[in-house]
Amino acid sequence: MPKVIALSGGVGGSKLVEGLARACRPEDLLVIANTGDDFIHLGLHISPDIDTVIYTCTGRSNLEQGWGQAHETWSFMDMLRTLGGPDWFQLGDRDLAMHVWRTYRLSQGASLTAVTQELAQRCALPFALLPMSDDPVRTMVDTAEGVLPMQNYFVEKRCGPAVTGLTYQGAETARPNPALLAALEDPALEAIVICPSNPFLSIDPILALPGLRQALRNAPAPVIAVTPIIGGQAVKGPTAKMMAELGLHVDAVAVARHYAGLIDIFVLDQQDAALADAIRASDIAPVLAQTLMKGLSDKRSLAEAVLNAAIR
Amino acid sequence: MPKVIALSGGVGGSKLVEGLARACRPEDLLVIANTGDDFIHLGLHISPDIDTVIYTCTGRSNLEQGWGQAHETWSFMDMLRTLGGPDWFQLGDRDLAMHVWRTYRLSQGASLTAVTQELAQRCALPFALLPMSDDPVRTMVDTAEGVLPMQNYFVEKRCGPAVTGLTYQGAETARPNPALLAALEDPALEAIVICPSNPFLSIDPILALPGLRQALRNAPAPVIAVTPIIGGQAVKGPTAKMMAELGLHVDAVAVARHYAGLIDIFVLDQQDAALADAIRASDIAPVLAQTLMKGLSDKRSLAEAVLNAAIR
Repeated sequence: MPKVIALSGGVGGSKLVEGLARACRPEDLLVIANTGDDFIHLGLHISPDIDTVIYTCTGRSNLEQGWGQAHETWSFMDMLRTLGGPDWFQLGDRDLAMHVWRTYRLSQGASLTAVTQELAQRCALPFALLPMSDDPVRTMVDTAEGVLPMQNYFVEKRCGPAVTGLTYQGAETARPNPALLAALEDPALEAIVICPSNPFLSIDPILALPGLRQALRNAPAPVIAVTPIIGGQAVKGPTAKMMAELGLHVDAVAVARHYAGLIDIFVLDQQDAALADAIRASDIAPVLAQTLMKGLSDKRSLAEAVLNAAIR
Repeated sequence: MPKVIALSGGVGGSKLVEGLARACRPEDLLVIANTGDDFIHLGLHISPDIDTVIYTCTGRSNLEQGWGQAHETWSFMDMLRTLGGPDWFQLGDRDLAMHVWRTYRLSQGASLTAVTQELAQRCALPFALLPMSDDPVRTMVDTAEGVLPMQNYFVEKRCGPAVTGLTYQGAETARPNPALLAALEDPALEAIVICPSNPFLSIDPILALPGLRQALRNAPAPVIAVTPIIGGQAVKGPTAKMMAELGLHVDAVAVARHYAGLIDIFVLDQQDAALADAIRASDIAPVLAQTLMKGLSDKRSLAEAVLNAAIR
């Protein structure tokens, strides 16, 4: 059974996951990926966050581009454009193998959990990675331009429309991954880490699963969240913009408060040390660390700080 | 309505089709592609002969390789192998766009005819191309190693197993393309060309469609077949090997006799001039031409010879 469970979205979360896999024994780590971003495109089942974790943690991620696979080619998209197919969602040729194979295995009756385990093993991912649920949950973004499916908001509209709310379609009946529920009950569990992912797009879909908040609260290990906001700004993506649009103050305190009642510890950046008291006021223990992860040593250091804070 | 109808398989047939599109006005040409080779692979609907005609006649074919698209990349297959997917059928990255888009459009309820027309138009194919039927027909090859679906025989087994017979699953209930049936009744029709494709794998699946032989016989234009065998050898592929395995003499006469009762004219190669009398004895008018098509001028010359023979 894992000693460390991490809840992760895509790019930001994967960075900390990569560090965690080095800060603890990989066999002690279980990563739960958000699948609220999953969608069916051209008939293919795409699981962006699962793939990003695999790519990031097996040396396959495209660092220049910031998403997708390294050594990628784009012949499929080039031909698809010739055929008049949609080109708002970029499908790299290597990336496409993940989607086609996943879709094919699902069509054979395999669960998303089974397919994720197969993909992870084949890519030599050194730790366990599971989808939050085998049931479909679809994050829908309420915006000034209407309700948009997550990928349409995020990729097609480039996070442009002002966000007024979010819903997680299907979450109310989706079953949390049984392996996650079992791991949360294990007395040897040492830490539950909420990665520095977008709280609304990446973490809340996981937390929306029935019974999961309670299971996290009941677990024998502390829940520790890492800030995705440093100095009032998001490292990447629309987190800061969304917070402002949702009427929140854009700082680490607002993120900590968003998780209030669930987390025991909040890791904020050293440069936000002045916010520690406000976090403490929400009954959350603040921990200062360098949270910007530029390279592998940053990732590992932050992961060690997170685990030390949890085990302390 | 078309003045020339051509029945075609893949590589060999496409060469003559390319010539026909230059020997007559492209808008006068209707090409009917064999779909007995179609199959579902990794959940994708693959129509090899349709794609080969499109690639060949729009300057997209990979001349060095002999199949698939030019300027192709292979990243998908590389990653698919990493994932443990099957690699006996090579899917190029560009090629994949045809399969994914076709599968997606079919899943939306579009007919194979509609999708083929869309693909052809987007690729700027200058003439009409239609599948022989919108209903599935699957060529099964009876061999010494058991019954093999066409692509498993052709690609996976590299035509190795000895062929003992062929069946065209679904042909008995498949409806010939209505546009083909209508075109065959047009009094202005001038020629029906059976391309130099493999008779058993590429042409017989078309001829197996209910009522089609009779419709070809009843058409107001001559039916003219072009030999795929020159000097006792196939230009490409397993035609000669299959003929021998099926107990046929491997020469142009045996091909002409295979089509006896259906065709009016048989175009054989100049080097096989000595066989003309044997063909005439089967009530088929022999026509000599240079049938080996090395380049575009060969294709056009042969197409002109075919059309001249039909209209003569």
